[in-house]
Amino acid sequence: MHENVLLSHIFTRTRSLVEAFPQVLLGPGDDCAVVDANEGSPILLKVDQVIEHRHFTSHTPFELIARKALARPLSDIAAMAGSPVAALAACVLPRRFSQERATELFDALHHAAVGLGLPIVGGDVATSGNADAPIALSISLVGRVHPRRGPVRRDTAATGDFVYVTGSIGDTYHADPTEQHPFPGGGHHLTFTPRLREAAWLAEGLDDDLHAMMDISDGLGLDAARLARASGVRIELDADSIPLRTPSRGPRQSLADGEDYELLFTAAPGATLPRTIASLGTAITRIGVVTQGSGCVLRHEDKTLDISDAGWEHG
Amino acid sequence: MHENVLLSHIFTRTRSLVEAFPQVLLGPGDDCAVVDANEGSPILLKVDQVIEHRHFTSHTPFELIARKALARPLSDIAAMAGSPVAALAACVLPRRFSQERATELFDALHHAAVGLGLPIVGGDVATSGNADAPIALSISLVGRVHPRRGPVRRDTAATGDFVYVTGSIGDTYHADPTEQHPFPGGGHHLTFTPRLREAAWLAEGLDDDLHAMMDISDGLGLDAARLARASGVRIELDADSIPLRTPSRGPRQSLADGEDYELLFTAAPGATLPRTIASLGTAITRIGVVTQGSGCVLRHEDKTLDISDAGWEHG
Repeated sequence: MHENVLLSHIFTRTRSLVEAFPQVLLGPGDDCAVVDANEGSPILLKVDQVIEHRHFTSHTPFELIARKALARPLSDIAAMAGSPVAALAACVLPRRFSQERATELFDALHHAAVGLGLPIVGGDVATSGNADAPIALSISLVGRVHPRRGPVRRDTAATGDFVYVTGSIGDTYHADPTEQHPFPGGGHHLTFTPRLREAAWLAEGLDDDLHAMMDISDGLGLDAARLARASGVRIELDADSIPLRTPSRGPRQSLADGEDYELLFTAAPGATLPRTIASLGTAITRIGVVTQGSGCVLRHEDKTLDISDAGWEHG
Repeated sequence: MHENVLLSHIFTRTRSLVEAFPQVLLGPGDDCAVVDANEGSPILLKVDQVIEHRHFTSHTPFELIARKALARPLSDIAAMAGSPVAALAACVLPRRFSQERATELFDALHHAAVGLGLPIVGGDVATSGNADAPIALSISLVGRVHPRRGPVRRDTAATGDFVYVTGSIGDTYHADPTEQHPFPGGGHHLTFTPRLREAAWLAEGLDDDLHAMMDISDGLGLDAARLARASGVRIELDADSIPLRTPSRGPRQSLADGEDYELLFTAAPGATLPRTIASLGTAITRIGVVTQGSGCVLRHEDKTLDISDAGWEHG
């Protein structure tokens, strides 16, 4: 079962059902849903899960599991240019788990949340009857939309826009010695910082010139194709422009690595952007252009490759 | 591992951490958390899970699994006198699950949600590497607080209050032929209707005379003791007054059955309440009184029994 295919299928089937409710401002299919919680008070909503053996190993320290479980949906809040308000955590534990270890895991979750700037206001824990069942953690987040720009969607890219990414792409399972993080050797996929401040900076600085945005979780090729499909446009990327974490790995492999958790966004061609957000030290790189058509192509060594399917299904 | 004990332990450890955030109006430990989503816009937040072999069997139809998964946290929204806005659904499925069955399960979730009056605006599905892992469904809910009364907490019962329940208590695993529901034979624990309308009616009618409220999920004795502990009071229940679903089962067994999902509330002694909410056909029964002290006791056949531990740990 391909989870992303299944989810997309479910979203398509249920969109009309969901969007019939007047409080739903944006239904399933974007990085977050947007809901009017009280009259005139839009909030962002997102749920995500991490599962043992899929998103972390049995040897991953609790603090890194907790951090990743929270940082993944926070990256989706960032993708809408929102800011986090609160989290809920639900956990299924195998029967072998002691109360002490369960407490340690929840302590790790609370401390990771505070470190990432938000409180976990509620939780549930259930033990599986199965002694070998994997640890499963689901995190639900509530966020605020950007007060001026509002939520930044993925279906609003326009022909002529330039395409940008923050940070660098690929090789996310190996630790980058140039990255400053508290868990040396953990690898980017465990230790990345969600691009919340970068997203706020973009929304503030570009305002309505910030056209479309999403986070890159399944590989730049696959996610750029999703943005193109949602917006009804084509995205053309220039291989030589793409900032690779490990250049020796090459663009095609790096684009398929997944778990970058960088921002992919399009801006009006008249918008000016620096190469680095000075206050944050984060690179911004122009990597392509939005044209008429569909799909995502990569211009590489005089070839034009369709990379719409070049990504990683990690569920 | 006793999940309720663990959760309570976690809440105690983390309350100060969580409540240091200014947006947290009420932290973990009540039926829902209350968070200020935007300035001056309080929302209710709740997460709950159902797990195969624990909360339903492998033979329970998807529509009943879906309904129960949603109705349980909706009962917590009711317990705060709130109304639901939106849900998020996350699912861990065993590897044996086909895409068709996964789609069926999500379709059942969406239809159950619409039937219960709210949209599922986001979801995640992950397959467990383990072929025998149980189905696990986590549902997160966002709710509005009652516009006039605000959230009704469990820690605000006052000495002299009368104690009430809605509906009837006990024998929740057997279908009640007098209950009107679309799934005959399903049993109250699968087919109950969350008391959202009753809670709104109480908040509207009693306003500030509605002192404290919670839902009964683990048995009247255990839950009344929790309300008493949260409020720093003692609750004295009169066995002959308690409305039993199956009177032949007796009060002590009925109090320990759990999964009633009725409202337990206290109101100022001057408040007048009908025996039945006429517009809803729901009974309201006065079953006891709030006194000084601690714990929950049952007066039964000239004896006074401590029933603070008489309940069901279903996690």
